[in-house]
Amino acid sequence: MDVKDLFKDEEKYIGKKVKISGWVRNHRKQKEFGFIDFSDGTCHKHLQVVYDDKLDDFDEIQKITVGSAIEVEGLIKESPAKGQKFEMQLENIKVLGTCPVDYPIQPKRHSDEFLREEAYLRARTNKYQAVFRIRSVAAYAIHKYFQERGYVYFNAPILTASDCEGAGEMFRVTTEDLNEIAKSKKYDPKKELFGKPVGLTVSGQLEAESWAMAYKKTYTFGPTFRAENSNTKFHANEFWMIEPEVAFCDLNGIMDIEEDCLKYIVKYVLDNCPDEIDLLDKFVSKGLREKLENVTKSKFVRITHKEVIDILKDAEKNGKKWEFKPEYGEDIAKEHETYITEYFKKPVFITDWPKDIKAFYMKLNSDGKTVAAADLEVPGIGELMGGSQREEDYDKLLDRMKELKMDTESYYWYLNLRKYGGCVHSGFGIGFERLLLYLTGVDNIRDVISYPRTPGNCEF
Amino acid sequence: MDVKDLFKDEEKYIGKKVKISGWVRNHRKQKEFGFIDFSDGTCHKHLQVVYDDKLDDFDEIQKITVGSAIEVEGLIKESPAKGQKFEMQLENIKVLGTCPVDYPIQPKRHSDEFLREEAYLRARTNKYQAVFRIRSVAAYAIHKYFQERGYVYFNAPILTASDCEGAGEMFRVTTEDLNEIAKSKKYDPKKELFGKPVGLTVSGQLEAESWAMAYKKTYTFGPTFRAENSNTKFHANEFWMIEPEVAFCDLNGIMDIEEDCLKYIVKYVLDNCPDEIDLLDKFVSKGLREKLENVTKSKFVRITHKEVIDILKDAEKNGKKWEFKPEYGEDIAKEHETYITEYFKKPVFITDWPKDIKAFYMKLNSDGKTVAAADLEVPGIGELMGGSQREEDYDKLLDRMKELKMDTESYYWYLNLRKYGGCVHSGFGIGFERLLLYLTGVDNIRDVISYPRTPGNCEF
Repeated sequence: MDVKDLFKDEEKYIGKKVKISGWVRNHRKQKEFGFIDFSDGTCHKHLQVVYDDKLDDFDEIQKITVGSAIEVEGLIKESPAKGQKFEMQLENIKVLGTCPVDYPIQPKRHSDEFLREEAYLRARTNKYQAVFRIRSVAAYAIHKYFQERGYVYFNAPILTASDCEGAGEMFRVTTEDLNEIAKSKKYDPKKELFGKPVGLTVSGQLEAESWAMAYKKTYTFGPTFRAENSNTKFHANEFWMIEPEVAFCDLNGIMDIEEDCLKYIVKYVLDNCPDEIDLLDKFVSKGLREKLENVTKSKFVRITHKEVIDILKDAEKNGKKWEFKPEYGEDIAKEHETYITEYFKKPVFITDWPKDIKAFYMKLNSDGKTVAAADLEVPGIGELMGGSQREEDYDKLLDRMKELKMDTESYYWYLNLRKYGGCVHSGFGIGFERLLLYLTGVDNIRDVISYPRTPGNCEF
Repeated sequence: MDVKDLFKDEEKYIGKKVKISGWVRNHRKQKEFGFIDFSDGTCHKHLQVVYDDKLDDFDEIQKITVGSAIEVEGLIKESPAKGQKFEMQLENIKVLGTCPVDYPIQPKRHSDEFLREEAYLRARTNKYQAVFRIRSVAAYAIHKYFQERGYVYFNAPILTASDCEGAGEMFRVTTEDLNEIAKSKKYDPKKELFGKPVGLTVSGQLEAESWAMAYKKTYTFGPTFRAENSNTKFHANEFWMIEPEVAFCDLNGIMDIEEDCLKYIVKYVLDNCPDEIDLLDKFVSKGLREKLENVTKSKFVRITHKEVIDILKDAEKNGKKWEFKPEYGEDIAKEHETYITEYFKKPVFITDWPKDIKAFYMKLNSDGKTVAAADLEVPGIGELMGGSQREEDYDKLLDRMKELKMDTESYYWYLNLRKYGGCVHSGFGIGFERLLLYLTGVDNIRDVISYPRTPGNCEF
């Protein structure tokens, strides 16, 4: 059985004898008794195991170290201690695996930096156990949301011969020995397993569109890669993306879905990880619970890029100093995102972006200058989702690709989606780790990824 | 609204007017009326749309081609036709996207080979729409199974600097320009973004074990890669794996979980894709439904490798000719797997394999010769899952790694999992595509992957 079962249905277990395996998280010893803080990792709460010197092996028990794997057997009884309803009165204990006293994870506060070095152990601490449980629960919420609404899950290919949207740098993949390539002085892509150079996907969106044209509603959820040399708190070279695509859906329709989806995920995590959220609220990001609860109740703002620039310029008139001057037709900076979300104090969709700063596949608006794109900006994080209506007009799409000097031939199939029963369709992308920063209040992407890959770091 | 809604609650819609967008799958025209076979991809069933020459735009409607995107509006009424309860009497129609007459997907049977060439369109055919919907539903069943049982979903890293189990060939990943490497005559891994050579994971198991030691129960579900040059019906270079790991669980315990899990997935697909299974049963693999229903009811066989060899040798005595002679202490061939599953006519766990043909991390049995591994062999597919108890003894694991001349230093963290509260633990792997071959009756792995990557093929 699991510790989780005890907390789920405590009435059933009080007065009963149970046997559970798990680990010693802390061990407080007194002369005639002791307390083992016991966790099996199945829920945030720990079981307090109480023992006394009436047990034959009392002296042996007192020697059990933090981190050891043990099996405990005893009576579940109401607890006199504050903050817990029940505890276990120990009757039998078995040490399944010892742990040396120099075990790095001691019952005290460790720095995030230290725990990044010991990443293979950090899920054993309260904070990281909470973070990575939320990661799992949020992933499930995403699948649940889309599956229950009839979306077909699409596994976008990871290895790809095309460079989607040319965004960021692409990792190259080879089956050739790199030292041999250097020795042979000439690289011949025909020798590759695939007969040509391939790389790691930066987005599964284009392929997902082909599924939307067959199933109406589809979503991806898989890893994507950027070979950028960015050492920031928001960038990792390997991260997971969710990319839903919906046929017969315009920009307003996709914003409705984005808003509904985000509220669902937040609510699901609040409902299913209440203890984890409380811990993070207390020790990591004060006000986290309130922030998340508010988002489920608020109506997101929808405002055009032009209107955003108006607000930013007004602020300047009223004395606000900008590092980067806001301009119509240009991208907005991090400081502007921050200002806008603080201005409205809730998530804001910014729509109708200048076409030149956005991707080729976005639907050109009738003004000929802007595209039907919407970025969702949330307080404290910045951009959380990016969506757009996709250009469904074959000729306009082709023109835009030529304008950008793209290799239109290799995209024949993507263009053909507009030729063979094409229709208005839209989609969006969620960076899963950025969503997790939002859900957990953690401020560094390295701390919401089990084994993060960032420049210079590819450990474990 | 979706076509799926109509079939879910037909009583609610009969006699009502509805409006839906979707695609023309077929169009049969008569002089005074016509039938549009209409699908929006949200369910396997199509809606029959009936129209007649009382409509003003009758002549225009008759010109609508197969593959076009349309919006139809009309009355849902009971159908006089056989095989369907209701149909739509068309009142209004809008063509949202035309389709030329040379559209590759016509309402006739296309060969699998042809559809592989047009992979971006094949989900629009009945067969592949069924296959890839089952892929999505099965993926969800897997998440549901593990999440409802308290497993924490673990996203194993894809980029890795270590070669897990040395199995198969590993793809190399580089941020350097391959032509530049050739020109410079020397490859310097220190120039890489990560400062060292990295590759694509072949398994997330080792990392997943670290999560099992924190959460007790964990599972991965993500892409894995093998750079093998194998052109078979069962091999792809990119495929998805599910790798659960459970602490405090021995080999028998993990086989219980494997059996329960497989039955759950099969039952979930039978319950949620009945029409898809019927189609595949009829046109792809006769007897599919019966085979799947049987597996949910059968008790899987558990038999040792030695006992398997006994059976195979007995068969030889009774006249069976083997291409590969079965031997104690050696691996078994495909023909042996087939024989064993036909012998028992149900899934068979083969346990206690000779250690030399199995991976380094498997628990050495007390005989010193075999390991606590179990392969699940199923009729018609062969090996579907592979599981084992993991070696929890630090010294034995270290000895085995040294014996195999592994770089034990880079595995320090994996070894330490045995030092810091280690315990009996076990896990298994499911090849997702192999499972799909089993669930769909399709016989080629290229036909259960949206855009398959096999030697020479990396299209779309």
